[in-house]
This record gives sequence, C-alpha cells and structure tokens, in this order.
Amino acid sequence: MKAMPQIGVAGVTGYAGAELARLLLHHPRLRGAGLHFFGRENAASSSESARLIDLHPQLANNNGAGELRVQPLDWDAMQHAGVELLFLATPHEQSRTSAPEAAQRGIRVIDLSGAWRLQDAANRAIYQFEDESSAVAVATQQAAIYGLPELHRDAISAAELVANPGCYATSIILALAPLVESGLADADHGVVCDAKSGVSGAGKAPTSKTHFMYAADNLSAYSVFAHRHTGELLEQLHLQPEQIIFTPHLLPIPRGILSTIYVTLLHKSTGKEIEALYRSFYSDSPMVRIYEAGRLPQIQYSVHTNYCDLGFALAPDGKRLIIVSCLDNLLKGAAGQAVQNMNLMLGWAEQEGLA
Amino acid sequence: MKAMPQIGVAGVTGYAGAELARLLLHHPRLRGAGLHFFGRENAASSSESARLIDLHPQLANNNGAGELRVQPLDWDAMQHAGVELLFLATPHEQSRTSAPEAAQRGIRVIDLSGAWRLQDAANRAIYQFEDESSAVAVATQQAAIYGLPELHRDAISAAELVANPGCYATSIILALAPLVESGLADADHGVVCDAKSGVSGAGKAPTSKTHFMYAADNLSAYSVFAHRHTGELLEQLHLQPEQIIFTPHLLPIPRGILSTIYVTLLHKSTGKEIEALYRSFYSDSPMVRIYEAGRLPQIQYSVHTNYCDLGFALAPDGKRLIIVSCLDNLLKGAAGQAVQNMNLMLGWAEQEGLA
Amino acid sequence: MKAMPQIGVAGVTGYAGAELARLLLHHPRLRGAGLHFFGRENAASSSESARLIDLHPQLANNNGAGELRVQPLDWDAMQHAGVELLFLATPHEQSRTSAPEAAQRGIRVIDLSGAWRLQDAANRAIYQFEDESSAVAVATQQAAIYGLPELHRDAISAAELVANPGCYATSIILALAPLVESGLADADHGVVCDAKSGVSGAGKAPTSKTHFMYAADNLSAYSVFAHRHTGELLEQLHLQPEQIIFTPHLLPIPRGILSTIYVTLLHKSTGKEIEALYRSFYSDSPMVRIYEAGRLPQIQYSVHTNYCDLGFALAPDGKRLIIVSCLDNLLKGAAGQAVQNMNLMLGWAEQEGLA
Amino acid sequence: MKAMPQIGVAGVTGYAGAELARLLLHHPRLRGAGLHFFGRENAASSSESARLIDLHPQLANNNGAGELRVQPLDWDAMQHAGVELLFLATPHEQSRTSAPEAAQRGIRVIDLSGAWRLQDAANRAIYQFEDESSAVAVATQQAAIYGLPELHRDAISAAELVANPGCYATSIILALAPLVESGLADADHGVVCDAKSGVSGAGKAPTSKTHFMYAADNLSAYSVFAHRHTGELLEQLHLQPEQIIFTPHLLPIPRGILSTIYVTLLHKSTGKEIEALYRSFYSDSPMVRIYEAGRLPQIQYSVHTNYCDLGFALAPDGKRLIIVSCLDNLLKGAAGQAVQNMNLMLGWAEQEGLA
Repeated sequence: MKAMPQIGVAGVTGYAGAELARLLLHHPRLRGAGLHFFGRENAASSSESARLIDLHPQLANNNGAGELRVQPLDWDAMQHAGVELLFLATPHEQSRTSAPEAAQRGIRVIDLSGAWRLQDAANRAIYQFEDESSAVAVATQQAAIYGLPELHRDAISAAELVANPGCYATSIILALAPLVESGLADADHGVVCDAKSGVSGAGKAPTSKTHFMYAADNLSAYSVFAHRHTGELLEQLHLQPEQIIFTPHLLPIPRGILSTIYVTLLHKSTGKEIEALYRSFYSDSPMVRIYEAGRLPQIQYSVHTNYCDLGFALAPDGKRLIIVSCLDNLLKGAAGQAVQNMNLMLGWAEQEGLA
Repeated sequence: MKAMPQIGVAGVTGYAGAELARLLLHHPRLRGAGLHFFGRENAASSSESARLIDLHPQLANNNGAGELRVQPLDWDAMQHAGVELLFLATPHEQSRTSAPEAAQRGIRVIDLSGAWRLQDAANRAIYQFEDESSAVAVATQQAAIYGLPELHRDAISAAELVANPGCYATSIILALAPLVESGLADADHGVVCDAKSGVSGAGKAPTSKTHFMYAADNLSAYSVFAHRHTGELLEQLHLQPEQIIFTPHLLPIPRGILSTIYVTLLHKSTGKEIEALYRSFYSDSPMVRIYEAGRLPQIQYSVHTNYCDLGFALAPDGKRLIIVSCLDNLLKGAAGQAVQNMNLMLGWAEQEGLA
Repeated sequence: MKAMPQIGVAGVTGYAGAELARLLLHHPRLRGAGLHFFGRENAASSSESARLIDLHPQLANNNGAGELRVQPLDWDAMQHAGVELLFLATPHEQSRTSAPEAAQRGIRVIDLSGAWRLQDAANRAIYQFEDESSAVAVATQQAAIYGLPELHRDAISAAELVANPGCYATSIILALAPLVESGLADADHGVVCDAKSGVSGAGKAPTSKTHFMYAADNLSAYSVFAHRHTGELLEQLHLQPEQIIFTPHLLPIPRGILSTIYVTLLHKSTGKEIEALYRSFYSDSPMVRIYEAGRLPQIQYSVHTNYCDLGFALAPDGKRLIIVSCLDNLLKGAAGQAVQNMNLMLGWAEQEGLA
Repeated sequence: MKAMPQIGVAGVTGYAGAELARLLLHHPRLRGAGLHFFGRENAASSSESARLIDLHPQLANNNGAGELRVQPLDWDAMQHAGVELLFLATPHEQSRTSAPEAAQRGIRVIDLSGAWRLQDAANRAIYQFEDESSAVAVATQQAAIYGLPELHRDAISAAELVANPGCYATSIILALAPLVESGLADADHGVVCDAKSGVSGAGKAPTSKTHFMYAADNLSAYSVFAHRHTGELLEQLHLQPEQIIFTPHLLPIPRGILSTIYVTLLHKSTGKEIEALYRSFYSDSPMVRIYEAGRLPQIQYSVHTNYCDLGFALAPDGKRLIIVSCLDNLLKGAAGQAVQNMNLMLGWAEQEGLA
C-alpha cells in the first residue's frame, strides 16, 4: 500500500490559500495528515512561524487545524519531509523562481499564479517577467501543462508542473470550448465576453480598489482591452486577438464570477442542439454542470462549490447565442481547481474532496 | 408674473415616487408649494389619506413635508385645485387610462410608466395592452412624445403627454445616439448591450426576485432577448431587432445602472475623435457628462445625481469600441428625468432642481 | 450490523431546509441514501412532486441530488418507507399537528420551528397556538426536549421529540450559560443582549421587510421587548423577564448572527478566569469555540460552519463583562444544530458531517 | 451689504472632505463662489495642484466644480485670498499644528478631527498628542468650543475654533442629553451604548479592516472599552467612566450609524412622557427628528440627510428605556455638522444648505 502522500502549500496567507488549506484539511484521502504549510517568505528572511488559525480564524477546530503552523518557506526542510507535491499560492514573481527550484528537487508543482500559463511570448509580455529569456525559464515553461482538467486531463495526470488557470479564463474557456472545437462559432465575427467578478479576485492586499467604499454599491469595468487573462483565452481557444473581446468588471460581492458571452454561430441552431453539444462535450467532466435550455445559471448557485455552471439563450434567429458561465473564483477559479489537478496527478477521482 | 404652477403626482408610493416627491419639494421654482400628492387608488375605491412621511420617513422635516398628505386619486379635486401638470408614477395599466383622462381635462402629463413610449404596435405587443386598438389609445399614443430631453428637447417643451423613457433605455440610447446619427456605427455587424441594474429598478412589490436573499451576493441575467425596453432602443436608434442585443442583469446594489456597449465602427477611429463626437453631440445637454478618453464612468459616481455618464475604450485596431454608460435608475432613469421634462414643459432651465 | 436509517425531511423548501438537505446528502453515515424529502403540503392537497434541484439549483450533482424528488407530505408512505427520524422544517402552526402525528406513528422528530420549545404557558402566549390547551398538545409539550446539545446532550439522545432552538436563542444561551450556572452573573442588575442577524433569519417569504431595498445598506431594530425567542432565554437561563433585555436587529447580510451581551459580575474577575470558566464549561462540546482573552469573534469566521464562537472583553474595573457570540443562523442556529441533534439521537459522534 | 465670505477647506481628499465640498458648492449663501480647496500637504512639500473632479469624479459639472483646483496647503496664499473661515478635514496630528497657525492669522477654524474636542487631559491621553503640554496647545484647547449645535449653539456662534464632534459621539450625546439633563437617567446603574457604523467612518486609507473582503458580509466589534470617542461622551454628558459602556461595531454598509442605547430610569415613565421630554429639549433644533412613541428610526431614513433621528421603546416596567439614534456619519456625523457650525458662525440659519 502506497504511503500517505506529503503535500506542501506555499503562500497560504491569501484568500485562495485559505480555501486550499480548508479543502486539503478535509480531503478524504488526506484526512488532515501529511500537510505542510509555508508562508511566502523564505526561511532565510523570516524565522518565525505562525499558527494557521491566526491567519484564518475560520479554520479553528477543523480537523486539528489549531495545532498546525505556517513555516517560513524552507526548501531543504520540505525535501526532508518528503513533500512530493507542492502548491504555489504565491505571487507570480515568486512562482517564477519557486517552480524551477521545486523541479530541481523532484517536487511536482501546481502553481496558482500566472507565472507559467502562457506558451506564447507575445502573450506573456504583459507580465514583464524579468527572467523571460533565461534557459531555465524557457525549459520550465515548455514543461508546464495548462491545468484545466476538462481540456487537458491526461497531460495533467502526468505533469511535473501544472499552471492552474486564471479564474476569468476558466469561466470563459469552459463556456466557449465546445463551440470552438465543434467549429460552430463564427470566430471572425468576433466573440464578446462581458465578465463580472467578486472582489476576492483582486487579492488580499489593501488597495484603493479593494477598499470597501470603492467596491460596495458600485460596478466598474477595468483593464479593458488589457487584462492578463486574455492570453489564456487566445491560446486555449486558438483565437486571434481581433476575434475576441474580454471586459472584466468588479462586482460588489465577495466571491463569484458570471461571464456573459456573445457568439454568432456559423449556421442556425436550436437550444436543444446547443445543450446536446455541451452535454456531450462535458460528459466525462463531473465539475461542469450544464443547464437545461431556457434556464440560466446565477452566481449564487455556484459559489461555495467547485462547479462551473453553463447555460444558454439563443436569439429567435437561431444564430446569435448567449452563454452564461458561473463559478466561484476561489474554488473552480483557483483552489478547487488546484485540488482537482492534485487529484489527477495522484491518480485519484477528479472530484474527490470537492463536493 | 405667472402664478406658481400647481403640480400633481399620482402614485407617490414607490421608489421613483419618493424621489419625485423629494425633488419637487426642494425644486427652487416650487419651494414646496403647489404640490398635490395622490396614491394609486381612485377616490371611489379608497377614502383614506396618508401622510407623505408615513410612506417615506426619510422625507420628514424636508420643507414642511410632515404636513403633506397623499390623497386618493380624485380627478375633480385635481382639476379644481388647478393642477396643470401631472406626473404619473403609476403602473402602465393605470397610466393607459389616466393619461387620456388627464388629456380630456386639459392637464399635461409626464408618464413614468411604459404605457406610451412605443409608436410601433409590434414593439408594444410585449405589454399586451387591453385597449391596444381603441380610438382613444391610438390618438393618445400619437400625441405622446418620448421624453428623452437630449434627443427631443423641443417636442417635449410643447408636449401635452410626455412618455418618460425606461431606465435601461435611457442609458443605452444616450450611449449610442451619437454613433448612430453620425453613421459611424456598423449596425449590421450587431451591437451588444450588456446592462446591469440595481434592485430598485425591479419595483417595490416584494417578490422572490426582490428578496434580499435572492439579490444579495448574486448576479443574474434576466429577460434575455425579451426585455420590454428593447422596443425603445429600436425606435429611438432606428435599428432592426437583429441589429442589437440587450441583456439586463440584476446587480446586488440598491440603485444605479452600468451598460457596457460593444459597437463595431464602419471605419477606424481614435479615442480623441470619439470623445470629440460625443462632446459635440451633447454640447447643449447639461445632464450628460462625457469622460476623457482613457477614463471610464462607474456606478458610484453617477448615483444620487441626475447625470448620465459616458466613457469609451477603443481596441488597438481602432474599430471595436466599448462605451460604458452609467446613471442612477431612479433619477436620470426615472424621477430626475421626469423633472427635467417638467422643466422643459414649463419653460425653465432643463437642470433646475437637479444639481 | 444495524441497517441504514431512513430519514425524512418535511418542508425542504426554505433556507434551513436547503441547508438540511445539503448536510444530509453529504453526511458520512448516510452518503446520500435513505433520505426522503417532503414539501409542506399534504399529499391530499397536492399530488405533484418536484425535483430537489428545481427548488435549490445549487444542490445539483451533489451525491446524486439530481435524481431526488420532493414529495407531498404523506404519512402512510413515510411509515411504509420505514422512516424512523423526521425533521420538521415547517412553520410552527404545521409542526403543532405534525409532531403529534409522527409520535403516534412511532417516528422520532426534530422540529426546527418554535412549536415545542417552551414549557411555560406564559412564554408560549406570544405564539397564540390554537391548540394550546388540548390534551395532545400538553402531552407532546411535556415530552419535548429543548435541543441544545451543549446543555441537554443526554436527554436529546433519548428523546422522541426534540425542539430545535431558535437561532438568536442559541447564540445568547451558549454565551450566558457558563456565567449563570457558575453564579458569577449579577442577574438582578440586568443583562443586555444586543443581537444582530442576517436576513435569512426572516425566512423565504417575500415581504416588505425582506425586500432588498429595505434590508440593504440599512440596520433596524425590531420586535423590541417582544421577540418570540425571549421565552427560550428565560427558561433555559432561569431568568425573570425584568432580568434580561433582548434587542434583535436586521443586518444587511445573507447569514450570520452576532450578539453583543453585557453582564455585570457579582465579583471582580480577570479575562483569564473568564476564559478558563468557559473552556471548562464547554470542554466536551466540539461545536463551541472559545476565543483567547483579548480576541473577539466576527460573523465572517462562523458563517458556513456549525460552530458557535464565543469571546470576551472585561472592563478595567473587572466587573463589567462583554461577551460576543457568533454563529451561522442557518447552521448552528437551525439546520446544523438539527443534524447535531440527529447525531446524538442515532448514537453517532455529535459533530459528524458538520466539519 | 456684507461681502461674500471666503471659505477654505484643507484636506478635501477624504470622504468627509468630498461631502464638505459638495455641500459648500451648493450652499445657497455661497453658490459656488469664494471657495478655496487645499490638500493635506504643505505647499513646501508639494507644488502640484489637482482638479477637484479628479479626486471626486462625482462632483463634475456641479456648479462649475470642473474648474476648481485643489492647491497644496499655503497659509500666505490663504490669508491673501481673505479666507476668514477654514475647515480642517485633516488628520488630528495635522490639525494640532494647523489650528494654532490659523488662529495666529486671525482665521476662524472648524476642525473635523479629534485634535481639540477634549478638555480633560485624561480623556486626551488616548490620542498621545506630542504637543500635549505646550503653551500653544493649552491655550488653543481652552479656546476650542465643542461643535454640537444642539448643546452649544451660542458659544459656537462666537467661537474662533470649533471642534466638530465625532460621529459616534454625536449620535450618542444627542440621544442621552435630554435624559441626563432632566435627571431622569440612573447613571449609576450604567448606560450601555451599542453602536454600529458604516465603513466610511474608518477613513479612506486602504487597510486590512477597510478591505471589502473584511467588511462585507461581516459584523465585528472593535476598540471595545477603548474607543477615542468615549472621552467626548464623558465630558458632554458629565459621566464617569464606570457609568457608561460604548461598544462600536463595523457594519457592512458604506455610511450610517445606528446606536442602540440602554438606560435605566430613576422613576417609572411612559412613552408619551419620554417623547414629550425629547420634543421639548429639541424644540429649537431643526436637525433633530423625534420619532413618535412606538416607531424607531433606521439607518436608511437618515443617510444622505443631515438629521439625527431619535426614537424610543420602553419596557413594560416603565423603567428600562431603549433609545435608537441614527445619523449619516459623513453628514450630521462630520461634514454636515461642520456646515451647520459654519452657518452659526456666520450668522446664517442653522440648517441652510443642509436640506
């Protein structure tokens, strides 16, 4: 019998980190054991550890979380503890160095940042990575698998480095993939993705944009024609920049994404046909829920779950299609998807610990 | 010197009615005098009056509002009091009978409902008016002026019946009118209007959709391809149904609309040219604020004002334009616009009492 | 080996019902089997069944919930299916008849309503039960056990009828029980309980008070000196009406209760002593979390958990104590506590399925 | 005829500053003229000016606000411009130096910070003023008048330095003053003030406590037994520390305060007597609204107004009284009250420009 795997989490301080800790503490294959939590700072720069429950009081009493400590990041200690899989819930700058470090030590990685999601240098430009052209970075990028299980299940299972997708990207790619792969979408007409996200997507750092007074009772579009997740849409959906518009908006809610996506079809269709296409495409995907024709998902039904909910409305002309896609940006859009990837990498059922 | 005009308000019980009462009580030309408030019910069916401040406690002490009573609707009393202008903040079914009644008595009307906004019978079908084909209804409809001051200022000034526009329609028509009238928009490519509104737009009646638990922490699309305001867009913008998509969403906020509008231009343009086009088009419109190229309006800056805020973002290709339009659905989208129309009808400056 | 128990839920339509369904569907002892869902209406008055996921779309795909149907309430069918434990998530009027009916059929009951919580007729008066003095009602009331596991664990285990406590009452009784039972509280000086609850506590029926526009961006006190849960405080804490004030407020959030409780102590104390008293009192209670002296619970840390969180602040004089108590009104304040009671009644660990 | 007064505002960058600018721009005695806006930084340390509408886009087009600039703080320029009254919407550290500077130049001051509100050194200790014992500070403090018009109307009219009260303090002092001054309150029994405030009260600086994710869907008590406004309660109500408890809570709303205040009366009373006492006490105070016995104020009715709303509930024993006090923390709790003080200082009607 295989020994209990040892799992590491670096950067457990943020919102996605807290969700990740919660999911792992209750994962039926782990049952709270074999978990190693690390902060963002290296052991060299910080010698103090904190209790997990001081960072996230809501985790107290959960499967003994009260005893767990978050250590400064220490690679030797991690290797000595036998960690075989490491989640990086760290800023992308840090993931650029941590992922190669882990690879060198034979530790498989699921990186939740944007550090390794993009194969095309033009799409990566927006991140302005300092090590863009280093040999290590090039090799690491080539090894990275885009961690969307519904599209890359097999590659993820065998991957050494999984680049967990962006939250908006997950919501939009899952909504469009069946149409694009079936050739039904008229990409040249242009696809419009009007997406709206709760504030947790903007991270835990207090800024003028995450201030309650800015976000509450408000709605604002941001990063118009310039959001980092755009590259993921282009690469995963095989689109050109002029074929898609992606407009993010900041919603006055803690969590949840709803994307309203406008596609023109190459030929007339019916709601039933569209529904059948999606059901077929996702027949092996337990974490996608297809709504019956005539009903649409809402944010409230997907938050606190790991599902991506998809629904449709077709214009009377049968050619203009609206897809509504909902998910929880901290779960299917981040930590839940990361656990889904872990399950695949360790040979477990994709949805374990995610119900 | 002309005598102080006598102004009536029927249906002062709802959210738009409360805003209307507040605006009229503080209007510098009225100063709280000459106001007559009525409920929705006829005097025949209800003999009781209520204090305005029992309906809307926030109005207490405002210019003597504490003394004001809301009477059952009584046409003879209204005429006897010399009311020359009547606001109908009533459901559209009631406005269908009240507007002709007022006309017969020589009382000018500003109707805030959807009863008289649409000249094309096909567009009116969605309302299923019982009196659709009666002679009175046909004549009343022909006399009705669509009450968007920025487009129909002169006709409104002389009108006997002004049909105050829908809140979504105001936000979208003002955003698109300059592009459509200049011929710059490629209407055949299709315009996408992704609009989001606060809950007050859904009215005061408690329903499953206005329940706090339904609306809070949520976002949902509704009336997809089937919203009543669509006809206003078609008529005012001279578009065909297949040329425009309008998708309303319910935002978890009390008030405010943000519409994100996607237009393809017939030829390449620049942000400066677009800004100049809009500034020129609205040069005489004090209640429209044009944002400088590169900045976008947000709901928080337009609520509690009567402005419609317009901003733009142009794709690098110079042909795909996003217009963001914001307004307060209870002010520029309802009561404020109604007062703006009143100002025009009584020969006052358009923005009086609306700063 | 004992057979899998058959569990019934009547009134699965509301918010507490949805949480109850979710908890039962994932309970490790049930694993989605042996569950029977009923609506509020009798089979005689309604012959239609609905899918559980049409009532609560968020439950789709959860352990096969998609297949489950909600039947009209049918006692013979329930008995025939071998239901041994029935949750009543029904209005108190209905629970007054359903609980005796179940008793007659040998079905144990956990009633989430206020029908059977109060032993003193004076405290019950506020409910105006029509069957107040009937022999059946008297006998049923005598058999009922107040379902607060932390105070009545043993009686609950053996009970035929458990009256699940009110949400506010749970929050306040757990906060005060250690002080009252230790004799440290100066009850004659008067205890002040200033409590605040999210809107789900007001139920699913759309009313003027649950309208988004009423609750959002607002705070209001209600039922001052007249809330139904007051009787539970008096009976469980052995207080007289003049010894306690309980003031509920409606918070603009979906879920969560925070009670701020002001107690004068009979003799000087320290934060450490108070903390030790509480830790000792709740040493066997896995669902109560005691905060360290100097730290206070917040609603955000208790929602979506079944914990009741308790924290303290003591004035410099060592005699005036503030207790802050937080819980999720739908979990520890309703459905979670009901499952905790089920666990006790069926001989399982108190916290199973509640982590 | 007296010349138009020249008015200065320093620190117009925050939330109270924005409200102050809005109120002054529309004040009927000023009509947008004679206003001089300054930032927080001295001219020496910052040479740049900004447009008022870049700081507060919602002010665009309001009475020509688009043209107004916010200058670095420049005392000589201010004096040269003939500024006779200066609002300090600055942090208390800065007000400690700015108020004496203004005094020396003969400029009257309304300070919105906590710098000069407290006459008792023990109460000031919590601020840890660096200049606590300097001669200038002592003299300035002695000259300062506590700017609560309802209690100190005459002194404010003649004052050179008005210390505008804290938002919580205003809400609680106005609620308790009639009871304390009439001798009806049993102060020795202890008064409990459970107060709740919207997030704007915490200021514009982004912190972990003002992050949307911290405040939204949450309620938390803070500064328990240690809030800076406590000293104002003690001094204005002539109470000893052990006679009052003040517990602030952070509400998940942008603006508004509701204080629930528990007082034991020295002898039995009735709701009518209490109401009469308050109506008499505030008969000359246009900005206090007394609710009829049996009705209670709510936050939604006082926000966006300058009123303090007061209502009551009396226990059946006639001795335990609950007072509910509501106001808008940015208006009656800050900028509105400051304008009310300005009106008194300049000899205008107290409520001008505040309806």
